[in-house]
Amino acid sequence: MQKVPRYLEKLTPVEEAVKAIMEAVKPVAEEELVDTWTAVGRVLSRDVVAAYDFPPRPRSAYDGYAVRSGDTPGRLRLLGEATIGRVDVEYRVEPGTAVYVSTGAYLPDGADTVVPEEKARRENGYIIVEKHYPPGKNLDPVGAYARRGQVLLPKGYVVTMLDAVGLLDVAVTRIYVYRRVRLAMILTGNEIFELRNPMEAEERVLRGEVVESTGRLIEWAIRRYTPWVEVLGRVLLPDDVDTIAWYVTRQFRNADVIVMTGGSGPSTVDTFYQLAERLGGRVLFRGLYVKGGRPTSALKLDKGPLLIVLSGHPISALHGFVRVLYPVLKYLGNVVRAAEPPAFAYAVLEEGGEYKRPQPVKVKLILRDGVLYAKPLPGERQLSSVTVSNVEADGIALVEGRRYNAGERVPVIVYREPSTG
Amino acid sequence: MQKVPRYLEKLTPVEEAVKAIMEAVKPVAEEELVDTWTAVGRVLSRDVVAAYDFPPRPRSAYDGYAVRSGDTPGRLRLLGEATIGRVDVEYRVEPGTAVYVSTGAYLPDGADTVVPEEKARRENGYIIVEKHYPPGKNLDPVGAYARRGQVLLPKGYVVTMLDAVGLLDVAVTRIYVYRRVRLAMILTGNEIFELRNPMEAEERVLRGEVVESTGRLIEWAIRRYTPWVEVLGRVLLPDDVDTIAWYVTRQFRNADVIVMTGGSGPSTVDTFYQLAERLGGRVLFRGLYVKGGRPTSALKLDKGPLLIVLSGHPISALHGFVRVLYPVLKYLGNVVRAAEPPAFAYAVLEEGGEYKRPQPVKVKLILRDGVLYAKPLPGERQLSSVTVSNVEADGIALVEGRRYNAGERVPVIVYREPSTG
Repeated sequence: MQKVPRYLEKLTPVEEAVKAIMEAVKPVAEEELVDTWTAVGRVLSRDVVAAYDFPPRPRSAYDGYAVRSGDTPGRLRLLGEATIGRVDVEYRVEPGTAVYVSTGAYLPDGADTVVPEEKARRENGYIIVEKHYPPGKNLDPVGAYARRGQVLLPKGYVVTMLDAVGLLDVAVTRIYVYRRVRLAMILTGNEIFELRNPMEAEERVLRGEVVESTGRLIEWAIRRYTPWVEVLGRVLLPDDVDTIAWYVTRQFRNADVIVMTGGSGPSTVDTFYQLAERLGGRVLFRGLYVKGGRPTSALKLDKGPLLIVLSGHPISALHGFVRVLYPVLKYLGNVVRAAEPPAFAYAVLEEGGEYKRPQPVKVKLILRDGVLYAKPLPGERQLSSVTVSNVEADGIALVEGRRYNAGERVPVIVYREPSTG
Repeated sequence: MQKVPRYLEKLTPVEEAVKAIMEAVKPVAEEELVDTWTAVGRVLSRDVVAAYDFPPRPRSAYDGYAVRSGDTPGRLRLLGEATIGRVDVEYRVEPGTAVYVSTGAYLPDGADTVVPEEKARRENGYIIVEKHYPPGKNLDPVGAYARRGQVLLPKGYVVTMLDAVGLLDVAVTRIYVYRRVRLAMILTGNEIFELRNPMEAEERVLRGEVVESTGRLIEWAIRRYTPWVEVLGRVLLPDDVDTIAWYVTRQFRNADVIVMTGGSGPSTVDTFYQLAERLGGRVLFRGLYVKGGRPTSALKLDKGPLLIVLSGHPISALHGFVRVLYPVLKYLGNVVRAAEPPAFAYAVLEEGGEYKRPQPVKVKLILRDGVLYAKPLPGERQLSSVTVSNVEADGIALVEGRRYNAGERVPVIVYREPSTG
């Protein structure tokens, strides 16, 4: 029988743990120039600066008629149409004439104002304009949306889908971004297996084996919340230090971070220390001062990647992700401001409680008059390692280690539409 | 020059528009049996019911020693180890003996209680237990997580990643779900082009052409918020009714919904009516009573798909998505409760304002003491068709057509991490 190692003796507080990692690793430095769609989810390595005044020529802000202000009011001959996307404006608005323009179309030369379509009457190839339109009316002047040299999106920001749409509109088609943070996943545990054959899997679970789900959940969280990270690979391995070490040194040596699940519990073979000894590395911390994710640990390999170990239990691993891995991936990726973080919604606690350590708390969510309320599941279900209680919950609140009163606000990972009333 | 059709004469209120569509179409009826990972994002077509009591045998809730209650306190001979995932427990706990168990492991026969590892002393193949442990202590009894027949997740719920993890833990490996809603996208506009060559694209945008971004944004929103929808295809077409009709009838005839962007504005060729006439269909509504997304319209083709037209402008199209397409896709997909909806975070308005119609308002988001505040961008930037103002904003608030006072709460699509303080 194997020697059972001693229990984790010192648990490191979250802030200290994150700080220890940040001191041991450096953010990604390499940058690349990519097209604007490819930049979505990536981190800007330089400010995005407008290269031009945009629009470069005045643009109509309405569907209507481009005319000369001096001609209004009046009866004007309609020359034709200058719709958005016309490469060249074919018409010149001479005195006494008008050109139909659609919203966003460049104004034809000669015109200096726009009469909205519904304000003019049409009559046999002419339009009748009843009142005076001053120059510059109903149009966007040169530089209305962007001025040459203006910072459109600052360095360190994650480019969101909406940013990309906005930048393309003002002719920003290429963007400098940091290369993605390279991450690999090693999921360990003799008892885990990948779901391939559902019927066989059912039997195996009933017999005591476990479908690998922790790694899947963490990979999902990485793709969802840290799109600037590239998942190089994801492998299931038995609790065997030789095999794990081989993977670390032969397969994933170019990763910035290796995330390992399992292998760090108090009573399993302590893969963690053995790896540190075998590969030459520095233990940054060993065990996190939290409830749910206590085995979370970190190791910096000499001339090798950072190794972060998360709990083998899904909810506890997710807690480790939110508390440690997420801030570390932001740091490695040079992120100043991300897209939606995992827990940006705040909910009002419907019940107080005493929490000894930072912990994830499964909650039912209720939306009432625009306020989100969170009702913690009964104690033993808040953090059950068997996670069926997820289906009773809609989110995971993140509490700190202290007493909470009903009515206090807590950040929540919302994974289901809250119920109402 | 083309005949310019008259302006939209009647705008339909949002609720009426959604109702008109729901009356014209039927939700998906077909179901399929898929594995639990595949079910993520899909809609349950039946309740998920536990087929077994789970765990089927008592499981240890701690790393510790499985013993007989009657033997405690006492000195017990350690027989070996029964770790999680062992297919068969090899040891039987006879009087005077103990077996090491890890958290989640099935209890060996004979044992009826668990002594946590740190509460026992180990001594030459024996353990010393100092106090009495009653039967059932530190273990999860049969059926603790799921009872045979129990509804684990009800019909109509979207299966979230966390649900899947929980269900796999109790041996639910196959799930009945509705087939996905089939959606195709037709993006129209003579002026739009797909971003392929960034340098050339920059020049073309400066000359007045437009990079296709509305369809990309809507496709992103569909994948993000309605994962039960399958995007069959996405095609750019010129403003040509014949071509569009060919696509509708030849390529996308099996879609449940065709989403078209552009082609429904007041002054372009009215593709919409022409399609209805050509293909035989019923106009459900033509123009939405909103600001930003006014051209939103719907058409039910005879024996053909539902056609929903969104604005050609990205933010307006997104508004149409949130107000009309999202509820319709929920209805078509049989969704009772979705995962995170597009706008479940509510923010406190920092400034009041008068809004004539329902409208998207770009906002800066600030998080202070767990309360999210939204500061609307200056009037002309709230809904600019040129969307560079997105980069000044972090979210899009959805307001109704009425006066708002500072301090009122509004739902927000959050697309960037809120700033603090």
